This record gives sequence, C-alpha cells and structure tokens, in this order.
Amino acid sequence: MPKTENWQWYVEESAPTEAHHHAIENVYFSGRSDFQQVAVISTPVFGKMLILDGDTQSSQGDEKIYHETLVHPAMAGAADRSEVLILGGGEGATLREVLRHPGVKRCTMVDIDGLVVDLSKKYLPEWANGAFDEPRANVVIGDALAYMREHDERYGVIISDLTEPLEDSPSNILFNENVFRLIKSRLADGGVYVLQASTAAFNNYSLHCKMSRTLRRHYKYVTSFFTFVPAFDTDWAFLACSDTVDVAGLDPGAVDAYGKNLRGESFFYDGQTHRRLFSLPLYLRRALAADGPVF
Amino acid sequence: MPKTENWQWYVEESAPTEAHHHAIENVYFSGRSDFQQVAVISTPVFGKMLILDGDTQSSQGDEKIYHETLVHPAMAGAADRSEVLILGGGEGATLREVLRHPGVKRCTMVDIDGLVVDLSKKYLPEWANGAFDEPRANVVIGDALAYMREHDERYGVIISDLTEPLEDSPSNILFNENVFRLIKSRLADGGVYVLQASTAAFNNYSLHCKMSRTLRRHYKYVTSFFTFVPAFDTDWAFLACSDTVDVAGLDPGAVDAYGKNLRGESFFYDGQTHRRLFSLPLYLRRALAADGPVF
Amino acid sequence: MPKTENWQWYVEESAPTEAHHHAIENVYFSGRSDFQQVAVISTPVFGKMLILDGDTQSSQGDEKIYHETLVHPAMAGAADRSEVLILGGGEGATLREVLRHPGVKRCTMVDIDGLVVDLSKKYLPEWANGAFDEPRANVVIGDALAYMREHDERYGVIISDLTEPLEDSPSNILFNENVFRLIKSRLADGGVYVLQASTAAFNNYSLHCKMSRTLRRHYKYVTSFFTFVPAFDTDWAFLACSDTVDVAGLDPGAVDAYGKNLRGESFFYDGQTHRRLFSLPLYLRRALAADGPVF
Amino acid sequence: MPKTENWQWYVEESAPTEAHHHAIENVYFSGRSDFQQVAVISTPVFGKMLILDGDTQSSQGDEKIYHETLVHPAMAGAADRSEVLILGGGEGATLREVLRHPGVKRCTMVDIDGLVVDLSKKYLPEWANGAFDEPRANVVIGDALAYMREHDERYGVIISDLTEPLEDSPSNILFNENVFRLIKSRLADGGVYVLQASTAAFNNYSLHCKMSRTLRRHYKYVTSFFTFVPAFDTDWAFLACSDTVDVAGLDPGAVDAYGKNLRGESFFYDGQTHRRLFSLPLYLRRALAADGPVF
Repeated sequence: MPKTENWQWYVEESAPTEAHHHAIENVYFSGRSDFQQVAVISTPVFGKMLILDGDTQSSQGDEKIYHETLVHPAMAGAADRSEVLILGGGEGATLREVLRHPGVKRCTMVDIDGLVVDLSKKYLPEWANGAFDEPRANVVIGDALAYMREHDERYGVIISDLTEPLEDSPSNILFNENVFRLIKSRLADGGVYVLQASTAAFNNYSLHCKMSRTLRRHYKYVTSFFTFVPAFDTDWAFLACSDTVDVAGLDPGAVDAYGKNLRGESFFYDGQTHRRLFSLPLYLRRALAADGPVF
Repeated sequence: MPKTENWQWYVEESAPTEAHHHAIENVYFSGRSDFQQVAVISTPVFGKMLILDGDTQSSQGDEKIYHETLVHPAMAGAADRSEVLILGGGEGATLREVLRHPGVKRCTMVDIDGLVVDLSKKYLPEWANGAFDEPRANVVIGDALAYMREHDERYGVIISDLTEPLEDSPSNILFNENVFRLIKSRLADGGVYVLQASTAAFNNYSLHCKMSRTLRRHYKYVTSFFTFVPAFDTDWAFLACSDTVDVAGLDPGAVDAYGKNLRGESFFYDGQTHRRLFSLPLYLRRALAADGPVF
Repeated sequence: MPKTENWQWYVEESAPTEAHHHAIENVYFSGRSDFQQVAVISTPVFGKMLILDGDTQSSQGDEKIYHETLVHPAMAGAADRSEVLILGGGEGATLREVLRHPGVKRCTMVDIDGLVVDLSKKYLPEWANGAFDEPRANVVIGDALAYMREHDERYGVIISDLTEPLEDSPSNILFNENVFRLIKSRLADGGVYVLQASTAAFNNYSLHCKMSRTLRRHYKYVTSFFTFVPAFDTDWAFLACSDTVDVAGLDPGAVDAYGKNLRGESFFYDGQTHRRLFSLPLYLRRALAADGPVF
Repeated sequence: MPKTENWQWYVEESAPTEAHHHAIENVYFSGRSDFQQVAVISTPVFGKMLILDGDTQSSQGDEKIYHETLVHPAMAGAADRSEVLILGGGEGATLREVLRHPGVKRCTMVDIDGLVVDLSKKYLPEWANGAFDEPRANVVIGDALAYMREHDERYGVIISDLTEPLEDSPSNILFNENVFRLIKSRLADGGVYVLQASTAAFNNYSLHCKMSRTLRRHYKYVTSFFTFVPAFDTDWAFLACSDTVDVAGLDPGAVDAYGKNLRGESFFYDGQTHRRLFSLPLYLRRALAADGPVF
C-alpha cells in the first residue's frame, strides 16, 4: 500500500452532518482526567491544540484571538483591576493576559482539572508564557463554586472561561440562578463579569441568546461581543455583565489608553478591534432583542 | 453492513491537512461546464450550495452575509448608483442585492459561464429571487474583460464577484495592471469599485494584502473589510476602491439612511454592521501596513 | 481556497468506528424508490456502483467475483438447470450468469424494486449484458414471496440475491420458517437453493452461522462458501442448500466440465476456484460447528 | 459544540480516491525511528495495531491470519526445520509461529529497526507471546542483508516479512538479483524460502506477478498463495520458493500431520485452509501465466 502522508486525523463534529478534519502531527497526550477526556496534539496549520471531550479548547495559532477578547474588554471597562478571578482557564493563557496589566495585584484562577493544568505547563508553555510562576498568580485546583463560597473576597473583574452549559460538561452546575447570585456577590462595585458564551453563528445563536437573557435579569448592562475563532470553526461569543459599566460603549481611544499599559504586544485587540467586537450584525441584534427562554 | 445515514460527503480542503466535510442531502447537478467543474448540492446545515472546481461559492444558509457585504458598502458610498456593473456573480444574488435599491436604473452583469447561470435559475431561485427577470437587469453571458473593452459605458459602482486570482481559475487573466486600468476607465467620477478579495484569516492573509497593495497604486482609497462566512469556513475579505470615496469612513447613520431605501429587509448589513466590517483587528492592520509584493 | 481534486465521497461504515471512503466521480442517480434509498455512482477504482440504503450492492470492477460465486456452484451441482428462479437480483448480473448456461430454458427473476431494475438497465448495462432482453428471461417486478405462493412451478436452482436479514431491510419478511418451507416446496428433486449469506469476517460471522444453523434444519446439505469481495470490503459468504447434492464436494474436474458449457469467458470461477471457495479456514469451521441461536 | 465520540482517526489510503478510516481508541506511541514513522495505536474493531510509514503492519484482531499463513506452509513443506531465518518480523509474531514447532532448534530473526522491536515488546506482547525470551530465539537488530553476508549458515526455512519493494521503503535494497542469489545460497537443500509478496486484489496484482516472475528465474517451484487480511483491507499474497518442494502440492493430510506437532492451537491454518490458500482464482492464474516485466 502506498505511503500516506496524513494518516492520523482529529475530527471535530459541529453537527452530525458537519465535521472538520485536522491532520495530526503529534499526539503529546491522550487520556482521561477525573473530569473529562483530555488530549494535547499538534497540527500543521494550528500548531498545538488542547482538546477536551473532543472539543477544541484553544490552538497555538489563534489562541490570542480568543484570550485577548475574553480578557481585555472587561479589564478595560472595570473600575478596579487589582483583584481578578478566573473561573476555569486551565491552559494559563487567560491568566497570562490578565497579568499583562501592571495594575493587577493578584489574579486567582480556580480550575477543577489539575491534569489539564499540569499538561498545559508541560506541553503548552506558550499559553501561560510564565504566568503560572508569577507571584501575583494564585492558582487553585478545585471547584470554582466551592472556592467562591468559601472565600468572600470581592473582585474587580471575574472572568469565566468555563465550558458552556451543555449537559455532558462538568461545568453545568455552574450555570444557574444560585451561581449567578454567588458570582455577583463576589463582584466589587464597578466590577465586570465576563464569560465565554457559546457560538454566535448565523444559524446557531439560541444558546448565546438564552445566556444573555438570563444574565440580563441580574445585571444592568449585559453586552454581547464576538469574533470568529478559526480553531473553533465558528463565530464565538462572550458576554460582559456589569451594573455600572457599559463595556460596549467604551471609546476606542480609552481602550487604546488601557492597552498602552499592557506588558508586551497584543496580537488582536485594541480600540478598533473593540469596536469590531461590539458592533453586532442585524440578525444577532434582532435575536438578542427577541423574547425567549431563560435558564 | 449496517445502514449508514450519511453516505455521501462533500469534502472541501483548505490545506492538505485541513478539510471540512459536509454530508450531502441531494446532488442536483454535478458536471463540467466549458470553464470549470460545477456542482449544485444540498446539505442539512447549509441548505443548497453552489460549488465550482471543488470550492464553495455560496450557500443558501448564509449567502446573504456574503452578498450584502459585497454589494452594500460600495453602493452606500457611491455618488451615483444609476448604472452598476457586476463582473461574474452567476448565482444572481449580487444582482438581487443591487436591484434592491430603487436608484439603480440598470445593472449589467457579465458572467462567462452560462451553465452556472442556467443552473442557478433552475436550482437556486432563492439567490436571484426574481432579479434575472427584472427589466433593469442586463445579464450578459461572456467575458467580462471583453465586454468592458467593447462597451465604453461608465458605472457608479463596479462589483467584482470573480473568483480570486489563483492559477487554475478562469478569472486569472482578470487580475493584472491592464485590467485594473480598464476597470478604472469604466468607473464614473465618484464611483466605487469593490471586489471580493480572498481570506483574511489570521494565518492566511498574504494574498489579500497583495491585492490591496496592488490596488493602492491605482486608487486613492483602498479599504479592506471582512466577515466570517460560515460556508467558506473562514474570514472573507473585500476591497473597496475609489479616488473620491473613503467607504471605511461612512457614518453608520448615513449607512442606515441608505438602507432605508432598500426593497425588503436586510439580514446582515446595516450601519452597525458596516462599522464591524471596516473595524480591522491589529494583526490585519499591521499586515496591510507592511511592505510586500504586488501583482 | 485551493482546488480540491476529490470533493465528493461515498462513505460506507462497517461499524461506527470503521468507514471506507470512496471518492465519487459521477452521481448518475440518487433518490428514494418505494422501498429504499437508491444511488448509482462511479468511482475511479471500482467504476460504477449500485448503493441501496447506503450499502454497496455491486461494483463494475468486481461484480463478477460476486455473481459468478453466487450462481455457478449451485448451477454446477444441480441435477437439472432447465428452470431457475432468482429472488431479487435487480442489477441483472445474476440473470446474466444463469443464462450463460445453454441448459437453462427459462430463468424467472422476481425483484420488488422496479426502480432498481430500471436504473440498472439505464446506467448499468454491463451488469445484465443483454440478459434482460433474452427470450429465456422472465423478469417480474413484485414480491418474491407472493410470486412463489401464486405460482407452483418447481425449479432446479433457486438463487436468493436478497439483502441479508437485518431489521431495516425490505427483505426481512423473507427469512423465516414459513419462507424456508415455501422455498423448499418450489425446489425440484435434485435441486439446489443458494443464497448470499452475510459476511464471514474473522470477527463478524455470527449472522452467517445463525443462517447456516437455521437452514440445516431444513436441508440435508448446507454448505458455506465465501470469498473476499473488494467492493464490500470484507469476506462475503453464501450457503448452498440441498437434500441431494453436496455442493462442497463437487470435483474440480466436474466443475470445469460444467464451465466448458458456459457462454463466454469466466473471470473468477472454475474448478480450482470452487475448491478455494469451499475450503474454509479453521476459525469459521469451528464457529459453524458450534451450537448457537437460530432464526 | 457537541461532544464527539470518535475524534481521532487513522486514515489509510489504498489509492488517492480510496481510504479506510479507523477510529482510534489509544495512541501508545507515535514518532520516528531511524528508518521510518512508527505508530502503535488501538481501535475498537481491530484492537492494537502497528503502523509503519502510514501502512498497517498487523492488528491484534487478525494478525494470526497473516502470520500463520506466512509461516506454516513453508515450515510444513521444508525438509528440515531445525534452523530458521526471519528477515524483518519486528513484532515477534513470525518468531512466535516458528517456535511453535518443536523441531526448530534455533530461529534467527534480523530486523533493522530496534525501535519497532522495543515498542512491540512493550506494547504488543500478545504478538510475540513470550517468543523473544525463548532460548531458541536469536534476535539480531541489524541489516538482514549484511547479516547473511557475514554469516554463512544455511537454513531449512527462510521467511521474509520485509515490506514489499516500493521506492520509499527501507527494504528496497533487499529485492534484486544479488539478494536473491545471496538468500538462495543460505537455503539448505530441501529448504523453502517464503516471502510476503504484495496484494493479489482483482485490480492490483501486477507487483505480485512481477515478484513471482522474477523469482521463477531462481527457483524450480515458485507458488503463489493468498488470503484476505482484514486489517490490510485487501487480499494479501505470498510466494513459496524452493528447488525441491512444491508447497502448493502438499496434501491436506500431511499439513494436518505437521500441525499436530505445533504448540498451542492455531486460529486460521490447517490442511483445509492450506488448500484454500493455494487454490487460486482464474484471473490470478491467468495473470501469473502471462509474460511481463521482472525486477
């Protein structure tokens, strides 16, 4: 039989009839943690990738698009960034982006899956880029919910990098009214709570809208923003929630002023990108404005 | 052997190591025209799709994202829209969008592949939505370049929906200095020339930048804009070229005023979407600003 | 996006974790009959293929392996070949093989799916190779069971080319004790009943063994034989049943004498091939000898 | 995105338009040796598999079909089995089968790729089943050709389990006239040289026939035999070469007498299976009898 160049493929289905196939260069790890299937692979186009339960979490090639978008709009809007809390975020790249701001005194990150954190340290050091070793980093392996119950600190920014509320995910119990109240109780005055919030694709935005409608019951300002994340193969959305800050309304000039303080160079995000992220197309604004179910 | 639900798949490769697989519901047509392989299929997620030489041209599910973006920023910016020229555009959806504006007196569309036009009329009527039958439509089957050479009309808007300049495409001869001069000579004062201009993906924007650099030699304003097009599986870019109009600088309010005149409802485009399309992320602005090869 | 050579694939799953992908050259037909999904395609390696409910029925490249094996051992063994009955066999290749023998006076073929027969005549003429037009051919579109109930002729050879007894197949009702008795009642003295009888793969022979065990209750001689059929991607088995003829025991010389009478040249079958087909490997003989369930 | 059960696939192409996809359960090893790409994986249907340069070498599920066929016909035919030489055979299963015969005093196995042997010992112990540790086993990591040049022992059976002579394989230099003469010079009187000899598929037997024609210049008896090997997805052929023994002509009774001496139970091979293996279908006998190129 003739030699096959690309013999090993990672197949991610977005529907039973749609699948993206990535040829695998290397498999660094493939196994089960106490919580989920975990794999670390590399592909020629995306570089290294972290895969949980068969879903791409982030890729070396485009993770900055995702992580800069998750972290900086909320950080730019928050009144105070000295204390930041990350729920999830095992790869360490959310932590890395938070710590790029010198105003952060401490960033606490709580991820339930120690194996993911260990594998990220071993195989994906580009993600954290040293952040795990910074004195300002407080990395906790444990249940984010329990951590918040047991610690009554308040944070200027709370960032949820948990997987979205599907039924077979370990983070389901983190998306309900009790949890929303708990998170809000840990948010400082002038604080911003931001979360990754499923896809905003033209045909698949109902979960995002449901998340938005639910959170609008708890916060004065709940603004959607999104960008195409190539490794996810779709537009990916986020929600910025606050009782005092309208993150969507931040002036590009103010965002650029915020950005000047960041350590190192950004790849994706600045004032103009902020304007892009928060300018939503018609179909999505119509969907967000419509009535519908809540969690 | 057990029954397989999804036995027929359309596989589109974006690289030798990356492929998107779509399960096929129906194959309406599959064959060769005088110019290219042509297929009309349907899939559960995207609906009907037109495929030329193995590349998705547009899908029923999201073609409005592509065609509203291709047509309306240029139309909104142009000083005069009474005469519009479309190069390519066989499906008829570009024509449909142009004719939504009552100020258009005539829209000439020149596509070389009569089979694609015929198949679109037969199988994809939702694309043109009747536009082929409007008295204002002037549909020519022929070489767009030859047509411009033989007709010296000038147009307020020229829209190029030709496939991008790859080596194995029938439209290669349409991307060189002679052609740029010819197109410009057919553009009325205050006119805007817009073209689809390859991908703007984080790792694959060199062709777009090369097209931009080339056209900047010919026009005062050459502005990039882009959106994720799900059926293309990537961010897709466009260029708006003019000596008088900075399309990127159009005010959202002015865009919305333009939009009010359009027949029917838009799905994707309006003032806020315009701001999204033309707000470019850092990595792309850096790439566009850098020196590099031209055609 | 670069041109993709092979954009359309036929995917046949033999298990949820095993799939064979064939690039499609042409789709001649794809639709539903009153009984099943029907497709006629072509591939570079196998040529034209008939696919029912997502399963390959036969391919231009190797159908002679299948059809010569299905037809000739039984024909070679039968005491009288003047009247032959085919259950199913829509493509016409079973009929073609039967009519190669000049001793056949009439071959009756009863297939329930007239669309399959019509498509075979139109797109797969190499299969029947004119057999549908021979005066000796009696082609009936209808229920094979009903036909046998309504006609009390007896046949020297009865050949079942029906799909195997899976739950979602239209031929299920053709595999039960009543049917076995009916078929036997239509078999002439010295007659042979042969049927295709599922896979004999090293890990997947239980259905074949169950069919064998069931038929051994009805016939003195029930012999398994099998060959690899490339288009099926697996070893494919058959059962020859008779109260008087041990088909497995036919002498290669006798088979070759039979073969000399056939019109045209065979591709696969002769005396030595007969010996191959009926010489079974250890694992399968052990499985056939073991006790187990029956239908 | 929904959870995907089968996210990692091993894709083996047999042609640019034909591919078999196996879902991967585990990747035990994936990397490069000094000679080739090496992977050890497992799949639900085939169990563990060894893959070299993208080609399946053997699978836990069906390796006995391959290895019993490679070893025992030659061993059954040879006049003396006290000294046996294996060229290649890294997994250890060829060695295992040889050592099942108590008449073997020493079996020398020479494989160039020490990594394959080490990985087989670590991950595929079922293949060798302890044979590597037997005192009668003489396992040499090195070039089989050089070994034969440097050692002038003669062997009653020489078994070549080398990959077939394709251009990008490390064993190419092992298939030419000089090598044939060298191997023959190491064959004892009454000895048998057997080699795996590419596919015998209905449309792809030319390499096998070329190998046969070439070896017929060197030996009085060169007999083809083959079986479907499911993990190879095709009929796989072998050649038994001798100046004194016509292996094809061995009586099933004699084979069964040989088999009685083997340690443990066989899965596939015995006298009747021998008859199956060496009974060739018409198309292959015709091809083997025709003139054609030699190496």
